[in-house]
Parts: sequence; C-alpha cells; structure tokens
Amino acid sequence: MRVINFNPGPAGLPLPALERARDELLDFEGSGMSIMEHSHRGKVYEAVHHEALERLSRMLKLPDTHTVFFTTGGASMQFGLIPTNFLTPGRSADYVLTGGWSEKALDEAKLVGQTRVAATTRTPEGRYTRVPTQAEVSFDPDAAYAHTTSNNTLFGTQFHTFLDTGGVPHVCDMSSDFMWRPLDVSKFDLIYAGAQKNLGPSGVVVIVARKAFLAKGRTDVPKIFRYLTQADNDSMYNTPPTLAIYLVRNVLAWLDGEGGLDAIERRNRAKAEVLYGCLDQLSGFYAAPVERASRSVMNVVFRLKTEALDEAFVADAKKAGMVGLKGHRLTGGIRVSMYNAVSLRDVETLVDFMVAFAKQHG
Amino acid sequence: MRVINFNPGPAGLPLPALERARDELLDFEGSGMSIMEHSHRGKVYEAVHHEALERLSRMLKLPDTHTVFFTTGGASMQFGLIPTNFLTPGRSADYVLTGGWSEKALDEAKLVGQTRVAATTRTPEGRYTRVPTQAEVSFDPDAAYAHTTSNNTLFGTQFHTFLDTGGVPHVCDMSSDFMWRPLDVSKFDLIYAGAQKNLGPSGVVVIVARKAFLAKGRTDVPKIFRYLTQADNDSMYNTPPTLAIYLVRNVLAWLDGEGGLDAIERRNRAKAEVLYGCLDQLSGFYAAPVERASRSVMNVVFRLKTEALDEAFVADAKKAGMVGLKGHRLTGGIRVSMYNAVSLRDVETLVDFMVAFAKQHG
Repeated sequence: MRVINFNPGPAGLPLPALERARDELLDFEGSGMSIMEHSHRGKVYEAVHHEALERLSRMLKLPDTHTVFFTTGGASMQFGLIPTNFLTPGRSADYVLTGGWSEKALDEAKLVGQTRVAATTRTPEGRYTRVPTQAEVSFDPDAAYAHTTSNNTLFGTQFHTFLDTGGVPHVCDMSSDFMWRPLDVSKFDLIYAGAQKNLGPSGVVVIVARKAFLAKGRTDVPKIFRYLTQADNDSMYNTPPTLAIYLVRNVLAWLDGEGGLDAIERRNRAKAEVLYGCLDQLSGFYAAPVERASRSVMNVVFRLKTEALDEAFVADAKKAGMVGLKGHRLTGGIRVSMYNAVSLRDVETLVDFMVAFAKQHG
Repeated sequence: MRVINFNPGPAGLPLPALERARDELLDFEGSGMSIMEHSHRGKVYEAVHHEALERLSRMLKLPDTHTVFFTTGGASMQFGLIPTNFLTPGRSADYVLTGGWSEKALDEAKLVGQTRVAATTRTPEGRYTRVPTQAEVSFDPDAAYAHTTSNNTLFGTQFHTFLDTGGVPHVCDMSSDFMWRPLDVSKFDLIYAGAQKNLGPSGVVVIVARKAFLAKGRTDVPKIFRYLTQADNDSMYNTPPTLAIYLVRNVLAWLDGEGGLDAIERRNRAKAEVLYGCLDQLSGFYAAPVERASRSVMNVVFRLKTEALDEAFVADAKKAGMVGLKGHRLTGGIRVSMYNAVSLRDVETLVDFMVAFAKQHG
C-alpha cells in the first residue's frame, strides 16, 4: 500500500517511473543485466543518458547559448564548487539571502573569496517570511556573479518573478523548484538543482549553464571541480551516477507524457490554490506566516495553535495515510511539500483532512 | 535472462541484492514508499544507513583509531579533494604511479600544490605491466602524504603486499579492489573506494580514514570539501545518495551472508587460479602481459594474436552469454573483470569457452 508522500526531499516520485524501474531492475530492455550494471561507456546506458539530457533540453527549450549536464553530489557540493570556479582572485560575489540554504551557500563562498550580501529578508529572530522585491536589492555591477535561491523549502517562500541582476551573471539554486513550470533559462548563467525534489533520487545534480559563463571559470583548480569538464564531456568525464540518471530519465519521461512543463504548472497552481485557499479560509485555526506574494507553490508551511496540536495533526494525518508533514526541526509546525509527483487529488485529500481536523479541534 | 557480466565497472552486482531491491522498490518494509522516497533524516532510512556502516566496520574489523563514512561522486572527485584537504601550503605529496588512474590523481594534485613521483613502473610506451617493489620506491619523509593505487583496472596489476610508506600518511585508492579480502586498515591513513566495482552502483564512495589524519585537514576550504565534515556528521552533513547507499547495504548484507571477507577471498583466489591457470596453459594462444607477482585478482588482461581474433573472442563469448570482455580503449585486447559478484562457476564457464575457442582458432 503506497502512502501519500509530502516529504520535503528526498521526496515522493511518480509511481509510473518507479514501476518501470522495478520491472526492469534485473534485466534492462533484454540486455540481461540491470541498468546499474551496464558500463557507462556502452550503447545501452548511453541511450538512457542522452534521452535524459534530450528531454531536459526540449522541455526547457534550451537555447544554443546554454548547455545542460549532470554532476554528482547535491546542492551543498555546488555551494563550494561555484565560488571555486567563478570567484576569481580580486573579484567579489553577491549573495541574496532568503533562507538557510542561501546562508549556507554564502558561508562556503566566504571561504573561497570576497562576498557581499546584496539583500536579505532575514528577521531579527532569524526567520524568513518573504523574498525581497527588486527595489530592495542592490547588485554590485562588478560582482563575479550574483547568487539567488529560487525557492526556500524550510520557510516556504519562492521567487515568482526572478530578480534582474542588471548584467551580473545570475547563478541560481533551483534545487527545490526546478521544472515546476516553464522557465526562461536564457536569463540565467548557471542554474543548479539537486534531483531529490522534482527529478529523482538524491546524489545527482542537473546544471543548466550559459556556455560563455562556463568558459570564464578558473582553469587552475582540479579538473574534476570545473563545470566545464562535465559540460565538455557530455557529463561523462568520469563515471556518472548511472542509476540515479536512469531514474531521472524515468521521471522526465513521465513528466513529458503528462504534457510537460505547461501541464505541470497548471497542476501545481491548482494544488497551491486548493491548499492556500484552505489556509486562508481557516486562518483562525491554521497560521500561515509567509507573505502572500512570496508563498511557495512547492512547500507550504503553517502552524497550529500549540505544539501539541501540531503533533496531533501529523499523527492523525499519518493514520489517514499521509506522511512527511512535520515541519523542519528549525521551524517546527507543519510543512506540506507538494512537488510535481504529488497529485491534485493528494492535496484535496489533505485539505479534506484539514477541514475535518479544524472542525474537531477548533 | 541474466548474462554473465564481466564488466569493469559499473559492474555486475549480486543477484540477491538486486532481487531485494526490486521486491521492495515501491514499498520499503511496509512503509508505503520506496527507500529513495524516504527522508534521509527519518528512522527508516537511518536504519539502512547505519546498517551499511556497521557491516563495513565489522567486516573490516575497524579499529577505534579509524572511521568509515560515505561521500558522493567517484574516485575522480577524491583526486581533487585529497590534495585540497591534505596538501597544505609549503608541503609536498608523493605519488606512486602504477597506471592511468594514479596518473590522473597526480595531475589533479599538481593543480593544488607541490608533488613528487615516488616511483613509477610506466614503460617507454606508456604501459604498465607490474607494480613497483618496496626497494624501487623512495618516499619523501616530509611528504604530506603518499598516494598509491591498490589495483589497476586498465592494465590488470595489483599490489599483493602494500608498500610501507615509512611513517608518511598512506592514502590509497582502492576503488577496484576494496573488500576483495580481509584488510588491515590500520596501515592506512585514508582509503577511498568508488562503489561501482565491489559494492554497488556508481555515485557513492566509501572512505576509511584515521581520525587523527582527518583532523590534520585544512579548515580554510569549503566545508563540503572537507572529509572531516562527513566523518563528523555520520555521512549526513547534506543529503547523502540514499538509494546508492541502500544498494551498498544490500550488497554488504549479501557479502556478510556469504561468509564475509575470508570467504570471498577464497572464492576470488579460486577464480584467479582457474583463469590465470588457463592463460598459462594456453600461453601460446593467449598472451598475458602482466608480470606474475603483479597479476590482479580483480582484472585479468590478455590479448590474442590479432585484433580480429580479439574481436571474434568478444563476439563469440557474447553469443555464449558472457559480456563485458572487451579491453579498455587505451589498451585493446581482452579484459576479464571478476569482482566479488562474479562466481567461480562464471569463471569456469569462461575458461571452458576459452579452451574451446583456442582449439577452434589455434
């Protein structure tokens, strides 16, 4: 029996993508072995690898100026690799702080070179309830790059309009909302996204980058640290995480089959409307701290009147077949993560439960 | 129909480990979701994670002085991270060259600091047919560390007795022969092994390290680059590659059930005896270039009289249900990789084929 999975990441994946993996786990397409047992240099795996990259390119309408590739690790590894590549001596990098992840990205960059906070919406209590407006941000025109985080999983905030960096190369951590809707990648110089929210299992990262920006990276650091190395070698400079990329392929094939990014945006917006609608209607019972314009479509946070009620909510939801609702240990409360694999029906089931819970305890 | 898989890596995995993964892919232990959909901070995944580490520690008889943990990427990422951590300014690092992988490791270290070749067995033609003896190596007593590669997959050479570094911290790439037999880890300061040979799918690395050595690593580099960060955080500083670690757990459980490292050593030695025995007996037909004392138990390389015969060998073997036998593109010829998951019976089947092939074409 599968549960309804609202995990923040690693997160629930589309059932058809998993069923496909199960069905061919011992014998991939009659090859007599699992996809994870294939050589990454062989035709069988290469077809999967290139299908994944091709589906990404097509769904993102990748312009010729940009390239897409895979790398290992997670977003945290990119926090270190980005300044290692692009924060060249004598330069400074701008960071926009919108939550714990952007703070971590900044902390890593500080160990590599000079940094500057271009904006922060951190409250005196160390919380974030919104993203900054364009007017609140001042970019250093000479910055090596400006780093932003498109969605904050902890605090449930999201940029719905991206900041204009005014010509400064824009590096964006999209780990938790990559491919939730169509995206104009031409506005970015480097996008990175750990797979474990919208794309697949943890351990693989998708990079979308402007070729001219990659070419500006340092060449005096180890070759494996350079983004250009994987970009120039079709994500195969060294052995890629083949099983993880295969699963990303399965998820992308599912997404494509569902109608791609336009269709998934409609579904994601409908999910958000239903859930935030419930929160607004029952605002006397459920407190949603995030400012309306910054509300995340991927991660919805709220809290009940007491911690005991929060706990009862999580426990009762679990009994009703819904898991992953406990807020992050730093914030407490409730967090509903509803990435692409979560259906509208899943959210409607949750909302029905929320209405009943409020009636029972209100 | 499963084939007999002699792939050099990613390589064949034990069938029971894969069957277990297939059977619980959609619903892990009644939790209603796949292991890859579980939070890495949840009890369900944590039990798998710690079981994997516990089995590694127990089978390796890990002393209190040492620690074992996982990290992402592959051996190539460690080529960059090792000098980043330990090649501190003003120091030099020693590298022992025994093949293409150790050359790559050296090339990366050169980009970080000063290096020195402590020994090389490279021939004028750029090949390697043996590892050096202790007498051939001169270690710099002031080196930050000495780097060796225990087994070379390309050229089929292996250290059967490890070099004594004379007190210099010993860093060893064991990617292609980790856990093929019992190992005295106390002699090493840092061992790293990409999983895709003896342990699981690509994308995860096992590190076994002396705690006192890790503590000497640089603290002025990004936190995610420091080995100490993962060692101090139970391999959970950031989201680990959960699915890959789960599969490593399955492989370790299988290995344990087979009798652990003593039992697998007996099996691996029997496999090598059968295959090298065949090569020695049919040395007029199959040419094995590696010197006897350096012959690898994991990767056996040989060539036939012509490239056409090499190709016929690979093609006929494939018809007989055996794959992965083509030599590396740099060396040509034949390569038989027989990691832990390859059974003695698999090797006997290959040897029967080799005898028949020699009779037919000799």
